[in-house]
Amino acid sequence: MVQTDRILMGPGPSNPYPEVFEALTRPVLGHLDPEFLALLDETNERLRAAFRTSNPLTFPVSGTGSAGMEAAFVNFVEPGDPVVVGVNGVFGERMCDVAARAGAKVIRVEAPWGRPVDPQALIDAHPSPKIIAVVHAETSTGVRNDLACLHTGKEGTLLLVDCVTSLGGIPVETDAWCVDIAYSGTQKCLGVPPGLAPLTVSPRALEQIKARPGSWYLDLNMIARYVMGEGGRAYHHTAPISMIYALHAGLGVLLDEGLESCWERHRACGEALQAGLEDLGFELFAEKGHRLPQLTSVYVPTERLPAGMDEAAARRALLERYGIEVGGGLGPVAGKVWRIGCMGHTARPRNVMLLLAALEELFSS
Amino acid sequence: MVQTDRILMGPGPSNPYPEVFEALTRPVLGHLDPEFLALLDETNERLRAAFRTSNPLTFPVSGTGSAGMEAAFVNFVEPGDPVVVGVNGVFGERMCDVAARAGAKVIRVEAPWGRPVDPQALIDAHPSPKIIAVVHAETSTGVRNDLACLHTGKEGTLLLVDCVTSLGGIPVETDAWCVDIAYSGTQKCLGVPPGLAPLTVSPRALEQIKARPGSWYLDLNMIARYVMGEGGRAYHHTAPISMIYALHAGLGVLLDEGLESCWERHRACGEALQAGLEDLGFELFAEKGHRLPQLTSVYVPTERLPAGMDEAAARRALLERYGIEVGGGLGPVAGKVWRIGCMGHTARPRNVMLLLAALEELFSS
Repeated sequence: MVQTDRILMGPGPSNPYPEVFEALTRPVLGHLDPEFLALLDETNERLRAAFRTSNPLTFPVSGTGSAGMEAAFVNFVEPGDPVVVGVNGVFGERMCDVAARAGAKVIRVEAPWGRPVDPQALIDAHPSPKIIAVVHAETSTGVRNDLACLHTGKEGTLLLVDCVTSLGGIPVETDAWCVDIAYSGTQKCLGVPPGLAPLTVSPRALEQIKARPGSWYLDLNMIARYVMGEGGRAYHHTAPISMIYALHAGLGVLLDEGLESCWERHRACGEALQAGLEDLGFELFAEKGHRLPQLTSVYVPTERLPAGMDEAAARRALLERYGIEVGGGLGPVAGKVWRIGCMGHTARPRNVMLLLAALEELFSS
Repeated sequence: MVQTDRILMGPGPSNPYPEVFEALTRPVLGHLDPEFLALLDETNERLRAAFRTSNPLTFPVSGTGSAGMEAAFVNFVEPGDPVVVGVNGVFGERMCDVAARAGAKVIRVEAPWGRPVDPQALIDAHPSPKIIAVVHAETSTGVRNDLACLHTGKEGTLLLVDCVTSLGGIPVETDAWCVDIAYSGTQKCLGVPPGLAPLTVSPRALEQIKARPGSWYLDLNMIARYVMGEGGRAYHHTAPISMIYALHAGLGVLLDEGLESCWERHRACGEALQAGLEDLGFELFAEKGHRLPQLTSVYVPTERLPAGMDEAAARRALLERYGIEVGGGLGPVAGKVWRIGCMGHTARPRNVMLLLAALEELFSS
């Protein structure tokens, strides 16, 4: 089959680090092999460093980011539980759907697409919710929702956060922000192919875990007996060995660079991209002050495209002529906005430079 | 980290085909890239050939084999539905747990570990069950349960089959046996690392699918709009790109060899292994006539081990001295039985020969 080497500047996946491909070719080990268990332990230790947490239960869920979201809700929501969800994009909507299927009484706190959710509105939405849930980096809009001020001090209320597009790209301070449950994905700022969902759960949250959630596959009680392994590792399901090698290697690159340095690289690339887009006369979509450096949303000036070329055709031209993938808009901004990712190994000045040059050529031809 | 090149003769994972490692190093594409969608379509076409089905909805679930099991139940079971499950090992037990969490009224049809479930007992267990579910190849015992005679002709009853350890290793005739829902895993006879669960669903089953299952991640209505893609591919979750490359490549090896030839290779290796074990004086555990060639269960003659070496130490010695992994027993046969896999790329006469030589040395030292 034809398979081109793309520069992945969409909303994810990003280009993996070279070290990650090397890891994927390593011999497969059994999921109970002492060598594999040592590697899994080290992977989880690296995840703790990335999440800035000391939570013992920190590991990659065996599915993509949305499996992390589902694990985060189904293990804690009892039927009828009030769950407050911040909604300002696709992934906040998805949280509502997942929580409702788990039986939650969902209380939506909305903000317009492109703008952040008001933290105080989340806190005020219910006197004693089981969960307050919010997406840190809304991949559908490029908006950062503030987390630092969300700790309510309400006894029994858990703070649940989607860090799929934030982890590794901007500060995520799980312990300092009193986040109880956070999940991510491998294919964004971690520079690893899609397939795993890093998850971390606070001891406080574990006190409230359901004894028998609706999902067997995502049952954290059972998975913890394999992952944490006190008194022997109990088999639950076969771990996705090669993808865990890949995550282990990607986190190695991240921590060798240094977490702060990696945030700084994402910040510098995002700022250069956003400044460059404005220099080209493009209008940014996300509200100033809450723009993600790793995911930029921008209105597409279709009137400047060659005659007969629409937004979708322009993305195809970027893909076919320059080998660059960017993402289209979703929901209310479909056909109007592009989402340009600069995450993981893709977050390099040369990629920003190339994309800006390609856009200049494409939109003035 | 230390990472040894093992010969994986446990109950899975098996050693992947060399072509699979090559595929894992290919550049990552976006999940909506036309080149990736073409590869996904071809992967699903290859899966149809492996499952011997024309079911349009045939694709790899984004999780390990147990995610396939969960998808198979949660999309079809309504609360209170009678579900008949054959139970003669760990994976039949797991089916009961998964079905019960989905709200099923589970009717167990048991057989002792090491013996097959009686097909007529499954048919007679309930006059009009929603589902009859059975594990084709019980990975915990090495027993084959017969499927060919399970088509009941009962209107509205779906036949649901676990093919995790059978697909690619012994005949699986999804359409000819009127199987409605079948799932597998990549890390057994397909010779691919763990991480995906191939699933196939008959059009007849799709008529009975739930509109809104409890799981968002495994919701087949939504996933089908991405996988089958009539009128455009709708994004659901980010596909695990690199693992799909791996599955595509592994299925390519399988179909180039020929499905029947691959079954024959597994048969020949399994027979040689079982004959060799009996020549060494070992007693096989699974009932004659229902022994899987790809997974052999055998009593461990611990009395013939060197003084002070128990069953677990003997497995460690195999791993450390010879680089061979075999699996321990589960449940009632833990500490008594070993499970020896000969699956996928591992199913080669040279591996059988080496293991028998190592066992001879170990058990007479």
